[in-house]
Amino acid sequence: MDIFSRTRAQFHLPEGVTYLDGNSLGPLPVKAAARAAETISAEWGELLIRGWNAAGWMEQPRRIGDRIARLIGAADGTVVMGDTLSIKVFQALSAALEMRPGRSVVISDSGNFPTDLYMADGLIRSLGRGHVLKVVEPEAVAEAIDESVAAVMLTEVDYRTGRLHDMAALTAKAHEMGAVAIWDLAHSAGALPVDLQGCNADFATGCTYKYLNGGPGAPAFIYVRPDHVEGIEPILSGWLGHEAPFAFDRDYRPGVGIDRMRVGTPPVIQMSILEEALKIWDGIDMNAVRARSIELCDRFIEAVERQCPSVELASPRDAQRRGSQVSFRHPEGYAIMQALIERGVIGDFRAPDVMRFGFAPLYISIQDVENAAAALADIIGSGAWDRPEFRRKAAVT
Amino acid sequence: MDIFSRTRAQFHLPEGVTYLDGNSLGPLPVKAAARAAETISAEWGELLIRGWNAAGWMEQPRRIGDRIARLIGAADGTVVMGDTLSIKVFQALSAALEMRPGRSVVISDSGNFPTDLYMADGLIRSLGRGHVLKVVEPEAVAEAIDESVAAVMLTEVDYRTGRLHDMAALTAKAHEMGAVAIWDLAHSAGALPVDLQGCNADFATGCTYKYLNGGPGAPAFIYVRPDHVEGIEPILSGWLGHEAPFAFDRDYRPGVGIDRMRVGTPPVIQMSILEEALKIWDGIDMNAVRARSIELCDRFIEAVERQCPSVELASPRDAQRRGSQVSFRHPEGYAIMQALIERGVIGDFRAPDVMRFGFAPLYISIQDVENAAAALADIIGSGAWDRPEFRRKAAVT
Repeated sequence: MDIFSRTRAQFHLPEGVTYLDGNSLGPLPVKAAARAAETISAEWGELLIRGWNAAGWMEQPRRIGDRIARLIGAADGTVVMGDTLSIKVFQALSAALEMRPGRSVVISDSGNFPTDLYMADGLIRSLGRGHVLKVVEPEAVAEAIDESVAAVMLTEVDYRTGRLHDMAALTAKAHEMGAVAIWDLAHSAGALPVDLQGCNADFATGCTYKYLNGGPGAPAFIYVRPDHVEGIEPILSGWLGHEAPFAFDRDYRPGVGIDRMRVGTPPVIQMSILEEALKIWDGIDMNAVRARSIELCDRFIEAVERQCPSVELASPRDAQRRGSQVSFRHPEGYAIMQALIERGVIGDFRAPDVMRFGFAPLYISIQDVENAAAALADIIGSGAWDRPEFRRKAAVT
Repeated sequence: MDIFSRTRAQFHLPEGVTYLDGNSLGPLPVKAAARAAETISAEWGELLIRGWNAAGWMEQPRRIGDRIARLIGAADGTVVMGDTLSIKVFQALSAALEMRPGRSVVISDSGNFPTDLYMADGLIRSLGRGHVLKVVEPEAVAEAIDESVAAVMLTEVDYRTGRLHDMAALTAKAHEMGAVAIWDLAHSAGALPVDLQGCNADFATGCTYKYLNGGPGAPAFIYVRPDHVEGIEPILSGWLGHEAPFAFDRDYRPGVGIDRMRVGTPPVIQMSILEEALKIWDGIDMNAVRARSIELCDRFIEAVERQCPSVELASPRDAQRRGSQVSFRHPEGYAIMQALIERGVIGDFRAPDVMRFGFAPLYISIQDVENAAAALADIIGSGAWDRPEFRRKAAVT
C-alpha cells in the first residue's frame, strides 16, 4: 500500500461521499472516537480531578504544540495550543505592536480571513494609540511595507482562492523595514511545507480543524520566535500563562517561554482528539504531501477545464503559487455547489461566485478528483443545478 | 427515590471514591460519553462540514446559554457560551470600562480568583488610560465603592473559603455610586440560587466544569444585562460575534444582542457534552439544591469539629454567608489531604494550609459526609498523614 492509501485508511470517509471540504473541517480520524471515549470515561470518569496530573492534561497544550511545530518548521517548545484562532491572532498582534512602540501601521491584505482583520480592529481601537490597519491587495503587500510599519499580518493561503504568499520574501521585506511578521497558517498547516524557522517568521497562528483534522472547534495554536518570547508581557494574562499558576499569587508573572501564551483552562477532550489526529502525521514527509497535493489539484483543474468550459479558474494556475485547494467561479456557483453536495461531492461556496474544493493529500485520491470533476461537468452540462431547492441563501460552511 | 438519589444516579462515581472536589472538576454524567460519541461519530463523522447546520452546532452557544440562564436568574437570550472564563472576564471588564469613560478605578477583592485579577491587569495595561485595579479585603468592598469607581468585579463565592458575597447589596451599592457590577459565578452556578435579574447585575461570567459538570476544559459563559448589550462594541471582535459571519465582510458589525460576545469557532464536542450534562438540571429547584447544600455542609462542619479538634474552620460558620464548600485549616493540611485522597476521599488543598471540600448536592450524600469526616478524623488522630510520600510539593488541583 502506498503512503497515501495507508493514511486514507486512517480516516472515516462516509460511504458515497467525495469530501473536498477538509480545508474547512477535516474528517474524523478512525481512532479519534476511541481516544475521546478513553479521555471521557477512563480519565475524567475514573481519575476525576487527578486527571490533570495523572493523565497529563496540564502538559497537553505544549505536548500537542510540539507535534504541530514539526509540521510548520518550528522547534520543540515554541508552539502552544489553546483558545481559538481569533484569540491567538489578538495575542500575536498585541505582542508585535508592543515590540514596535514607535510605529503605527499594521499591513494586511484583502485575502486575509475576516476574523484576523476584525481582531486587529478591536485591538487597535482598545489600545487607542493611533494605530492604523492598512488592508491592501495581496499583490501590493510587499510595496506597502515601509519604515512606518509595525507589523505585517497575513494569512499565507487565501481562504477563497488558495493564492499562496511568499512567506520567505515577505518576512524578509518586513524585517528589512524593521517590521514584525505574523503568519496565519490556517490553510497551510498540514497542507504544505511551512518553514517558520527558515523564514525567520516572528509569530504564527493557526487552527487545527482543517488539514489537521482535530474536529469541530478544535483548539488553535500560536508560535513565537524563541528570541522574542521572553520579552512578551501578555495582554491576555490568564492564570495558566502564569509562571506558577497554582501558587495563586496576586501578581501575574509570565510563564517560561511559550507557556505565557496560554490563557485559561484548555479544552481537554478536544485536545485529546486533536492529539490522536496528529499521530497520523508521524513519519509523513511534508514534501511528499506537497507533491501529492499538486498532483491532485493540477488534475482537478485539467479535468474541470476540459469538461466545464463555463467555469473560470479563481486559483493561481501555477501550483507553486497555490495552497492545497482549487476554486472556480461560476455565476450560478451557489446552486451548482448545492447540487454537487446532494450528489455526495462536498465542497463549499464563498460569495459572490466561488466554488471551493480542498484536496487534503492524506485522504483524497485521484479517483475522488475524477469523480468530482465528472459530477461537476454533469451538473453544469445537464442544468441539474437549476432547481429551486438549490437556490437558497448561502448558510454555514 | 428522592430527588437527590435520582440525580446522583445520573453521575458516574468511581467505586471506593468519596468525591468532594466537584467544586474544581465535576464528575462524569452517565450520559455524557454516549453524547460525545454521537457528536463525534454520527455528526462529525457522517455529516462532516454539514454538521454546522444539520446538527445545530452553530446555535449551540446560545442554546446552552439559555440552559445556564435558567440556573442563574437570567432571561433566555442573555447568556452565550465560549472561550474560557479568563477571556469572558476580559470581555466583561472591557465593556464595563467603556461604559464609564470618565472613571478610572476597578474594585476587586483578595478573595477573587487570581485569573480575574490577572486579566484585569492585562486589560488595564493595554488600555493605557490610567485605570487602577484596587484589590481590597472582602469585607472592605462595600466601603471602597465610591464615585471614582468604574466597575466592581467580584467572584461571588471565594474559591478558598466559600465565603459568599451579598450580590444584591453590593450590586445596589455599585449602582448607587454609578459603577458597573461584574460577577464571576464560577463557584455559584449550579451550587446555589443566583438571581442576576433580581439583583440587576450588569455582567456575569462563569465556568461550567465545576458544579455544572461539563468536563475538563468545558467552555465558559457570559451574561450581559439586556439593556447594555446593544451598546457594546466588543474588543475581542471575532468573526462569530459578527452580525453576519458568513458574509465575510471587511468591516466588523457586532451581532444582535448577546451573540456579539462570541469570538471564534466554538469547541463543538465539549459543548455537546456540556449540553448533555445540563439536562440533569431539568426540573431541579435551586432552592431545594441550596437546602441540601446547607444540610451537607453543616453536617460536615459538625462532624469534623466533633472528631478533629486540631483543625480550624476557614469557611463562614453561618450557612447564609457560605457557598457549597467547606474549608478547614491545618498546618499539615497538604499531607493530610494527600492521605485522604489515597483513601479515596478526594478534596483539595490551597496554600498555605487550607483543605477544601466541595459538596455538590446533585450527587453527594449524607453518607459521603460521614465517611469523609470519619476518614479525616482517623488520618489526623492516627498520624497516618505523616509519611514522606504525602509531603511532596503542592501540584495541580
